[in-house]
Amino acid sequence: MTLPLFVSGQQFIAGRRVASGEATLPGLRAADGEPTGHRFYPASREEAAAAALAAEQAFPLYSQTSPEVRARFLDTLADELDLLGEDFFTIAHQETALPLPRLQGERARTSNQLRMFAGVLRRGDAFGVRIDTALPARTPLPRPDLRQYLTALGPVAVFGASNFPLAFSTAGGDTASALAAGCPVVVKAHPGHMATAELTAQAITRAVEKCGLPPGVFNMIFGTDIGAELVRHPAIQAVGFTGSLRGGKALWQLAQQRAQPIPVFAEMSAINPLIILPQALVNRAETLANELVSSFTLGCGQFCTKPGLILILRGEGAPRFIQALKEAVNQALKEAVNQAPPQTMLNAPTLAHYQEGVSAFEAHADIQRLAGCDESVAGRAQARLYQAPASLLLAQDPLLQHEVFGPLAVLAEVADEAELHAILRAIQGQLTATVHAESDDGPLAQRLLPALSEKAGRVLFNGYPTGVEVCDAMVHGGPWPATTDSRGTSVGTKAIERFLRPVCLQNVPAALLPPAVQDANPLNLLRLINGQWTREAISPSVD
Amino acid sequence: MTLPLFVSGQQFIAGRRVASGEATLPGLRAADGEPTGHRFYPASREEAAAAALAAEQAFPLYSQTSPEVRARFLDTLADELDLLGEDFFTIAHQETALPLPRLQGERARTSNQLRMFAGVLRRGDAFGVRIDTALPARTPLPRPDLRQYLTALGPVAVFGASNFPLAFSTAGGDTASALAAGCPVVVKAHPGHMATAELTAQAITRAVEKCGLPPGVFNMIFGTDIGAELVRHPAIQAVGFTGSLRGGKALWQLAQQRAQPIPVFAEMSAINPLIILPQALVNRAETLANELVSSFTLGCGQFCTKPGLILILRGEGAPRFIQALKEAVNQALKEAVNQAPPQTMLNAPTLAHYQEGVSAFEAHADIQRLAGCDESVAGRAQARLYQAPASLLLAQDPLLQHEVFGPLAVLAEVADEAELHAILRAIQGQLTATVHAESDDGPLAQRLLPALSEKAGRVLFNGYPTGVEVCDAMVHGGPWPATTDSRGTSVGTKAIERFLRPVCLQNVPAALLPPAVQDANPLNLLRLINGQWTREAISPSVD
Repeated sequence: MTLPLFVSGQQFIAGRRVASGEATLPGLRAADGEPTGHRFYPASREEAAAAALAAEQAFPLYSQTSPEVRARFLDTLADELDLLGEDFFTIAHQETALPLPRLQGERARTSNQLRMFAGVLRRGDAFGVRIDTALPARTPLPRPDLRQYLTALGPVAVFGASNFPLAFSTAGGDTASALAAGCPVVVKAHPGHMATAELTAQAITRAVEKCGLPPGVFNMIFGTDIGAELVRHPAIQAVGFTGSLRGGKALWQLAQQRAQPIPVFAEMSAINPLIILPQALVNRAETLANELVSSFTLGCGQFCTKPGLILILRGEGAPRFIQALKEAVNQALKEAVNQAPPQTMLNAPTLAHYQEGVSAFEAHADIQRLAGCDESVAGRAQARLYQAPASLLLAQDPLLQHEVFGPLAVLAEVADEAELHAILRAIQGQLTATVHAESDDGPLAQRLLPALSEKAGRVLFNGYPTGVEVCDAMVHGGPWPATTDSRGTSVGTKAIERFLRPVCLQNVPAALLPPAVQDANPLNLLRLINGQWTREAISPSVD
Repeated sequence: MTLPLFVSGQQFIAGRRVASGEATLPGLRAADGEPTGHRFYPASREEAAAAALAAEQAFPLYSQTSPEVRARFLDTLADELDLLGEDFFTIAHQETALPLPRLQGERARTSNQLRMFAGVLRRGDAFGVRIDTALPARTPLPRPDLRQYLTALGPVAVFGASNFPLAFSTAGGDTASALAAGCPVVVKAHPGHMATAELTAQAITRAVEKCGLPPGVFNMIFGTDIGAELVRHPAIQAVGFTGSLRGGKALWQLAQQRAQPIPVFAEMSAINPLIILPQALVNRAETLANELVSSFTLGCGQFCTKPGLILILRGEGAPRFIQALKEAVNQALKEAVNQAPPQTMLNAPTLAHYQEGVSAFEAHADIQRLAGCDESVAGRAQARLYQAPASLLLAQDPLLQHEVFGPLAVLAEVADEAELHAILRAIQGQLTATVHAESDDGPLAQRLLPALSEKAGRVLFNGYPTGVEVCDAMVHGGPWPATTDSRGTSVGTKAIERFLRPVCLQNVPAALLPPAVQDANPLNLLRLINGQWTREAISPSVD
């Protein structure tokens, strides 16, 4: 086959392409598992260390760049991504089986995300400046001059997700927010889309060069188990990860075992409960059933926000809704069979994991299949709908606690509000929780809202959690095991805060102060000065 | 002896005093290790669990209280602390040997800290509201209405410090910031000042009652190893700790081993390097020597910000400075001998730890004692000054990496700027780093500043790190092992953020929105709305 874009399969270390040994990692086509023709060199331990050290070497210069310099870099990078053409999408489609329009949309999302962080830098929020000026005459003790701002944490290791080869991968949200924060990055390329990763990394490298930044600002290595070396390396100061609970937890544990432990922001596992309240169930049974099936089968169910647990209250609307849900799944299966080309899963391991999940559901004595056929089509994940008794949720049955990545959902009928509250207490932390309610359901919805906010990073009404807006207000995070740190988000502008830490300068001479905390406020930041939020400069008399 | 205030020695659980078994824990006088006459019941595992559950039970109500309700509670608590009289200080002095004026000052600091957090709640910063209003006409997809705010993390376990029986203990910064955030608290009373803790807890309980809050908002248990039970308990969602590296790390590890790991904010160990640049050394040798000795022997060196490592550049001023430093230590020792009453250490274990540290320094072949006498006075910690070769710092000799709690400092002469940078790379994370510089030292100081900011939470010029201002701009934190999470601070208003997490509400009906994110902005918060910071309400047309 022809290779329309050049894919060398070598590591990206400080602007150079490096490889040792043999290119033993073949790129694979998602559709049939056949080789794409691209081959990649697994990074050696030395190469992983060199990548971490390259990032460390770039840190002093890059972390001190002005926000405008970093903003221009992110804009340039966005432009480079936007220049990727049809060849790039062909490769990305080969590797992931994601439809072209989806990939094109994801590219726009990814470059817009980079531009959004450029905007955050220009807006200046990320400095979080707080200044308490000196009170030399205060008794019993004078107050010194104290100036706090947020500074970059250090080099960040990024582990992308299989299901978003652009938006949550090489140039995705973790990379964008780390680079915006002033942290150099080392990406461990996802083995499911290595050529896509390489072409994206080439675009980043071009942007680094165009902006005249230190080359170690961006690095990427290929390999399967080599990520552990990165997390262990003393130069790495934080980790961003999107993927499975097992993978995220393993990296998180490695990070804790270091002589100097570091934070790991891993987005891992969620079942994203969706609760339909009684009036909504009666009024919208069929619509809800159809929309819900579209949501949990969307993109083969390969979204971390897939609504995997449907909770309804026993009562009037329930039987009709369950019937409608079964029909909607069967209809979706019929359409999937006739679909051309068929939507396959991201890769063979993902499909295998899904089939393991399905088998566990099939084998569970207390769980009943409501819809989904017996025969399987090679390489294809088939939609499945199960019903579980509420008692299993209350008993924290492990099968119902963890995400099954793929087009599978579980329905549970709940006896009453008290049982619903008990279930919400029993389930683990979530990325999202959704309520469908009509106006009559208002009081019940109001009573549920605090419990849902306690369990999930995002609470939705009358919608579906798939589709994560990239904006200031988004939270794509939540209590364990949804993420390792519920105080963070991996989507939206607040994501930058994960890679920043506060520093306080006490009585530092004016000539040495960084621009963010200078009296004149040259960056025009909104700052908390002596207890007041203001963009005003500090007048010499006050100081 | 008379017990002027009633100390029952029982646990505080949901407003009740509870005890089982025997009161086997005696309160001890710091001065001579003799019993104070107070006895305390070590909490059973059941009592520890009951305290955690009491906090969990209070959480739904308390976390949803308005900021004004919580502000009034903190103000009331501050007033209750201010009402504590001479009897209280007598007990606190007995238990800690801290001088009365110091304890009175610390009480003022503690109640003012509570009032400061009341101010933060009224100012409204802690909500961090970000709103992106719906764009129903946007193509290709409409944008939903998204409203982010910060919400309480859950019940917090607090482990106070021995050296600040008020400001970093039962009603100290961790408790104040957790309560301000909306998190109920379970304090594990410090075994070094149990009666002080009990009287403080009584004051908190009175404030809870006066404000009509759920009694489980505050709980406290006594015991030695019982803290682990708290950290393991599923109801506890975060931990605040101030103390040793060993203690902090142990709790942190327990927290990671939970089925649901939780964040631990431990402030642990720092040597707080203080660097004197050449011109400052020449111009101010004697003054610096005297001030520095005052700083590292202040309060028997029992401050986590004690400057424990003095770095000077080899050259003109060095010999004179070293001589002055030796004389200042000897003078301090002479004065200490004549001091009446003598300042003793906080308790016998603290003194024993100090003496272990001293022995290790004495036994180290490459470390030389510059000042400090051989004979020891019973129960007293004597000031010690050592000199170590720079090579030991470069080799990361463990003895020089870790805090010795007490009046001991180490001096190292550094060959040149390059070696100084290498030493700053070799040492671990710090709470503070200090530079003494004259105007001629400016360029060198400027080159050092980024490296110091990378290592420490607070960087000071021409001052001493002891004395931590409680204000908006303070950072009392820093990279590991100074703390477990360099993104936090345990002093200052930013401390509240440790106990908050973001939640995003998507398309939640206006009637169900919490006040912080309502269109009308009833709390008059500064909010980020559609990319602009504003206190304006959202007009219906925009929405």
